[in-house]
Amino acid sequence: MKVGFLGPRATFTNLAVQKMFPATNNSIPYETIPECMDAVMSGEIDIATVPLENALEGSVNITLDYLIHEVDIPIRAEITTPIAQHLMVHPENKNKVIEKIYSHSHAIAQCHKQLHQHWKGIQCENMTSTAAAAQFVMLHPEQPIAAIANELAAKEYNLEIVARDIHDFSHNHTRFVILSKQELEFSKTKGKFNGNKTTVMVTLPEDQSGALHLVLSAFAWRKLNLTKIESRPMKTGLGNYFFIIDIDKDMDDVLIPGAIAELEALGSKVKVLGSYPSYKIEKGTVNEE
Amino acid sequence: MKVGFLGPRATFTNLAVQKMFPATNNSIPYETIPECMDAVMSGEIDIATVPLENALEGSVNITLDYLIHEVDIPIRAEITTPIAQHLMVHPENKNKVIEKIYSHSHAIAQCHKQLHQHWKGIQCENMTSTAAAAQFVMLHPEQPIAAIANELAAKEYNLEIVARDIHDFSHNHTRFVILSKQELEFSKTKGKFNGNKTTVMVTLPEDQSGALHLVLSAFAWRKLNLTKIESRPMKTGLGNYFFIIDIDKDMDDVLIPGAIAELEALGSKVKVLGSYPSYKIEKGTVNEE
Repeated sequence: MKVGFLGPRATFTNLAVQKMFPATNNSIPYETIPECMDAVMSGEIDIATVPLENALEGSVNITLDYLIHEVDIPIRAEITTPIAQHLMVHPENKNKVIEKIYSHSHAIAQCHKQLHQHWKGIQCENMTSTAAAAQFVMLHPEQPIAAIANELAAKEYNLEIVARDIHDFSHNHTRFVILSKQELEFSKTKGKFNGNKTTVMVTLPEDQSGALHLVLSAFAWRKLNLTKIESRPMKTGLGNYFFIIDIDKDMDDVLIPGAIAELEALGSKVKVLGSYPSYKIEKGTVNEE
Repeated sequence: MKVGFLGPRATFTNLAVQKMFPATNNSIPYETIPECMDAVMSGEIDIATVPLENALEGSVNITLDYLIHEVDIPIRAEITTPIAQHLMVHPENKNKVIEKIYSHSHAIAQCHKQLHQHWKGIQCENMTSTAAAAQFVMLHPEQPIAAIANELAAKEYNLEIVARDIHDFSHNHTRFVILSKQELEFSKTKGKFNGNKTTVMVTLPEDQSGALHLVLSAFAWRKLNLTKIESRPMKTGLGNYFFIIDIDKDMDDVLIPGAIAELEALGSKVKVLGSYPSYKIEKGTVNEE
């Protein structure tokens, strides 16, 4: 099984891959989230692992939008990992004043307050991933620059951590989804099993007062608990949205199909994005392996 | 009145300022959205104009999050403008092969397909705004680079447009909010008045099944039409959200206060972010002045 993920190596996504597929020796980093999903569509890889949501920044819009508008691959599992960000430099620049900081825009946002307090005025530049930032710092020892990235990246690129845990909020986690055309088994994973989920996309019949209320009624009557509801633009104009709804239950024969049939009868369009097991990595177990 | 906006000059936000405050000769560009809002809090400026939502990319998270978590400034108006993106170069590089494209990440995303089709493989780099990208291209004639920005930016920075309307979707608009501690009058604005809105933030009582359904019931019973509902993370952990709800009606004495009182009695927290007029700029009128 070939497992693609948002690269380069040593991203938080790579970490999720290590946890979910500990036996794999065929993991392939992709530069962007769409490229990784496209590779599943074309059969180049069997599985894509991409970030879906961060506890601070919210949804990773490109993942949601590409999954909805561009490809058709079921969600087969999700894994949630704690996020700890560190500031790291090339060992040669250990005692120099940092002139620029590189990282992913989400990581920079996650460290906003600490950066403002301790590294005020230093320019931050966005990279495609935290690991790409670490790699860039490793490749440019002549520049007094730093990267914000995880511990795996510091190891992978031989950087020295000069400030640990510079993220502003301590309860930060990221949720990754495992996408594949084939059904998958996850008996050997080390993460903690955290129940099943079903994710559906609902497009409302028209811009009518109370349409979303009606949709939620179909779930509420059946005591189906929604763990998330998110609106995303339809890309047809401001004010047109669809909704991504997470139900904390696996697909059954009665309740979820009943709700879906009712929603469709009322004029909504419903698409099941997946019904899958949810895993969680506990804090402190990240660097186990 | 001092009007701050997300700069530099010639951003789409600057365009919104020109439309909403045609008489002002005291508009001040800020480098980031938080700095612009902080300047209102400190009294440095009277009004902040910042982007809130784009028809394709969805909410501008930093605006929403900073408005909710960091500052307390009411929304006094909103204005929606059409977004047209062009590819522009320094006149000296008009006939050279473009080696790199600079723009805001949203603008790059808005042109994703056209870039993939016509400028495949050319590296794109994120800047803080489309105008900052245009400025960068103007300042570096020695490099064969291009910017994606609006017509105003091409004029302001003397760049030559080499490809017009390279955005993928033609119905793209951005919604800007006008924030101020003082009440404002907008009789002289040229945009089309588009009704009133009230925006509230609702935090659900606890992670209980159907809580959001209950909240929406309070609006549905009163035939209050919701034009938008958006979930944002609470920043206290994955799975904890608050909701931003737009009601297409100005604050009254009976219906909205009744709904709010009911929600509070049920254990939700409600904060009114503003009750304000909505304006719209029609396509083709952008370059009027």
